[in-house]
Amino acid sequence: MAKSAISPTRAENYPEWYQQVVKAADLAETSDVRGCMVIKPWGYAIWENIQRRLDAMFKATGHENAYFPLFIPMSFLEKEAEHVEGFAKECAVVTHHRLEPDPETGGLRPAPSAKLEEPLIVRPTSETIIGATFARWVQSYRDLPILINQWANVVRWELRTRMFLRTTEFLWQEGHTVHATREEAEEETRRMLDVYAEFAEGAMAMPVIRGEKTAGERFPGAVATYSIEAMMQDRKALQAGTSHFLGQNFAKAQDIKFQNQSGELEHAWTTSWGVSTRLVGGLIMSHSDDDGLVVPPKLAPAHAVILPIYKSDDERAEVLAYCDSLKDELSAQTYDGEAVRVRLDDRDLRGGDKKWQWVKRGVPLRIEVGPRDVASGGAFVGRRTASFDGGDGKGQGTPRGELVSGVADTLGSIQKSLFDRAESARDAATTVVDSLADFEAFFADDAPGGLAYAHFTDGPEMEKKCKELKVTPRCVPIEPLAGDDGPGECLFTGKPSPRRAVFARAY
Amino acid sequence: MAKSAISPTRAENYPEWYQQVVKAADLAETSDVRGCMVIKPWGYAIWENIQRRLDAMFKATGHENAYFPLFIPMSFLEKEAEHVEGFAKECAVVTHHRLEPDPETGGLRPAPSAKLEEPLIVRPTSETIIGATFARWVQSYRDLPILINQWANVVRWELRTRMFLRTTEFLWQEGHTVHATREEAEEETRRMLDVYAEFAEGAMAMPVIRGEKTAGERFPGAVATYSIEAMMQDRKALQAGTSHFLGQNFAKAQDIKFQNQSGELEHAWTTSWGVSTRLVGGLIMSHSDDDGLVVPPKLAPAHAVILPIYKSDDERAEVLAYCDSLKDELSAQTYDGEAVRVRLDDRDLRGGDKKWQWVKRGVPLRIEVGPRDVASGGAFVGRRTASFDGGDGKGQGTPRGELVSGVADTLGSIQKSLFDRAESARDAATTVVDSLADFEAFFADDAPGGLAYAHFTDGPEMEKKCKELKVTPRCVPIEPLAGDDGPGECLFTGKPSPRRAVFARAY
Repeated sequence: MAKSAISPTRAENYPEWYQQVVKAADLAETSDVRGCMVIKPWGYAIWENIQRRLDAMFKATGHENAYFPLFIPMSFLEKEAEHVEGFAKECAVVTHHRLEPDPETGGLRPAPSAKLEEPLIVRPTSETIIGATFARWVQSYRDLPILINQWANVVRWELRTRMFLRTTEFLWQEGHTVHATREEAEEETRRMLDVYAEFAEGAMAMPVIRGEKTAGERFPGAVATYSIEAMMQDRKALQAGTSHFLGQNFAKAQDIKFQNQSGELEHAWTTSWGVSTRLVGGLIMSHSDDDGLVVPPKLAPAHAVILPIYKSDDERAEVLAYCDSLKDELSAQTYDGEAVRVRLDDRDLRGGDKKWQWVKRGVPLRIEVGPRDVASGGAFVGRRTASFDGGDGKGQGTPRGELVSGVADTLGSIQKSLFDRAESARDAATTVVDSLADFEAFFADDAPGGLAYAHFTDGPEMEKKCKELKVTPRCVPIEPLAGDDGPGECLFTGKPSPRRAVFARAY
Repeated sequence: MAKSAISPTRAENYPEWYQQVVKAADLAETSDVRGCMVIKPWGYAIWENIQRRLDAMFKATGHENAYFPLFIPMSFLEKEAEHVEGFAKECAVVTHHRLEPDPETGGLRPAPSAKLEEPLIVRPTSETIIGATFARWVQSYRDLPILINQWANVVRWELRTRMFLRTTEFLWQEGHTVHATREEAEEETRRMLDVYAEFAEGAMAMPVIRGEKTAGERFPGAVATYSIEAMMQDRKALQAGTSHFLGQNFAKAQDIKFQNQSGELEHAWTTSWGVSTRLVGGLIMSHSDDDGLVVPPKLAPAHAVILPIYKSDDERAEVLAYCDSLKDELSAQTYDGEAVRVRLDDRDLRGGDKKWQWVKRGVPLRIEVGPRDVASGGAFVGRRTASFDGGDGKGQGTPRGELVSGVADTLGSIQKSLFDRAESARDAATTVVDSLADFEAFFADDAPGGLAYAHFTDGPEMEKKCKELKVTPRCVPIEPLAGDDGPGECLFTGKPSPRRAVFARAY
């Protein structure tokens, strides 16, 4: 592996490396519509695996799925003042409901006679339309809590887009819940943050910091926003999921009221929380290398690919029969509660090209079978992660029985080593900073950067300095860094500060 | 059950009965956006079950999921002439990408400075945008076939809407495939028609007729459209799924070309096929009765609900413990390859109200457990379909062991009896018609109507008469009606006719 499959490498040009991995792994491509992407089958299969696991976690915590309209009447966005500021800006506006032949161009045009009385917005997020629905559903404390999730597409008219990380249309889930008390709503907000953290670390092998956003980074209209923050290989942070405690703000704007046990009318307390196809971007940037995508086994569309190798027709028949039965045996194994996913690639392609396709697509195990393996009852097993998890990068011969019976353990150890590696990388790029000079040095243009834990006061001094350094406070971590020494002094103002925030450059 | 739970009854006012079933079963409601519905958790759970089963069938026939943009550039719709006619008319047109404060009203308005150069259409179907993508994917015969499916929302600006049956936004899947030869594409078109028929009959317990559409009913731009047609309880037909052989029409409009094995460039052959949330409407109208929804077990969000009955706290503890363990035992059973889905409803509600909620929601089995059942080791089992499948409508005492070990068989027999009943109803409303007078009498305003198999010639005479009678040719069935006598004479023109079409009023 003298030369890497992806050019440029991470070290040469990280943003361009990312685009090339997306392309080489056949995950997605830009479409004919500005800022929208086509998610190709391999990329969509990763999203389906993310969906299936998260959906089970949502249901296990009492949520049900429902579906709400794609469109939001413009007047709905006017109701919650901060929400208008945040979301009414760059969005797709539907103004007509018909096309007609254009007498001037010979093509089509929006029919002037079919102009909508009130424009409709393609949902950038659904608090307003779902809140209006909840106002009808909630009458009494007996109707609460309402615990709803929606899998949907949303549109935010982004000026600078990057596949998976920031696209005009993206896929996501948005949870929306209504509660009788502040305490219950706050508990829900934190519960779903924990679900996201468990998913990110357990399934994506992506270590995250759970914390509360500072005021300037809050969801428009929220009382408190929590997020999980991951660190990518270029030491930039990625906000991977958010959970919002909305207080009574949306309930008041949308008149979500209930009769309590004493018969009095009260405004309800609401939350919302979401993760999106951005997670696929986080997955790519957490684990992939200069040979392409690396997918953690729990989310891999295929756990293993079997590559038959033969020359003659006789060899072909023998090798393929062996591969077929090996595939059946492997597929009968289970890993993490699911059947092991195995593909057999018998396409008529040069062996080297074929192998590299699967390397670039990040399949955890490549199993090569030639006539000699058939004779010896084994296979040549290559781990995608061999370069750092103990293999030699060239695979090794394994007896068939051992391969089959050990496949779940092998996948489990790959999953674990991916998490461990990402965690080590993050920890190595994490520091505690106690002076403004150190803060500036850490984020100097020629410094590697990373995550800086620093005491702060939420206010204009912090914001100004952060803007200057192109840094943001990612969150105020719920769990302090090991060995952290409690309260201190704000770097930016010198005022007393009870807790540190973690700062980073971010996607 | 002297009085029915749903008012009006089917006999009194079928369309209104339908709306009331949707409401009483908590399936969906109208939203604040004209023509768009909110799919509530119970309705969405049915859709999820539909999705999961269909998705597995698509994957088993070699298809992969992907995702394409929500928006279609207006110019794309201009490319395929018939397609323009069919789909460029009533659709949602995005003309602006930003809102701004409106100085006149104090509210918001589409920002004049953010007018799009080319309007975007919210996809009414995706042949054009997917075709443009396929044109990039296809270079050589080695790239074929391409077998893709997309789960998505689509928008068609409908003037008259009805929940699930016809809504402005709806959820669906659209399959899109590309092939090297006409034969392969035709085979795919028929294969997916068969998948739909198998799903409708096997999972939905809804008998269907598979057939080819007449010219006037074809998908705009298709060479041939096939459909599955079901008959609802009011004897009207419902088109429940369509599969289109697109020939080279879209490939030519979108330049999908490949190099064949001889090195020559050829246009490819494409297909598309889809079913939508309309299936939920078909399910409702196939099986439900004057007490509300009836869901076939294979698609029921819950197979059984356990209703504990008690008076004192002591009874409560005893009954609930029994119900909990009964739930566990039932959930450990499998029906049709899936774990039996059981809910325990311990809400503090009057027993009668609670029971009727589950009747109206169509749960196949209600299991009532009181102190006497605990003492005798049994339960009182009510089948939702008792009124026609042999029960007495009041349930019966069943020993616990028998209930648990027999639950899959019970569900299977309910599934079968629903299909049998629907098939009998359809067959009873099906006739062969051999004269125009009989045709007119069959579809007279005061006649019950139904499905009429009649010889025809595709042309203006047929169309005129059908319009007059508010009837449409649903399809030319692939399988002739049993005992059908081969070629005959067109009812409308007297010309020779090789095959019959089936005619009906339709949704």
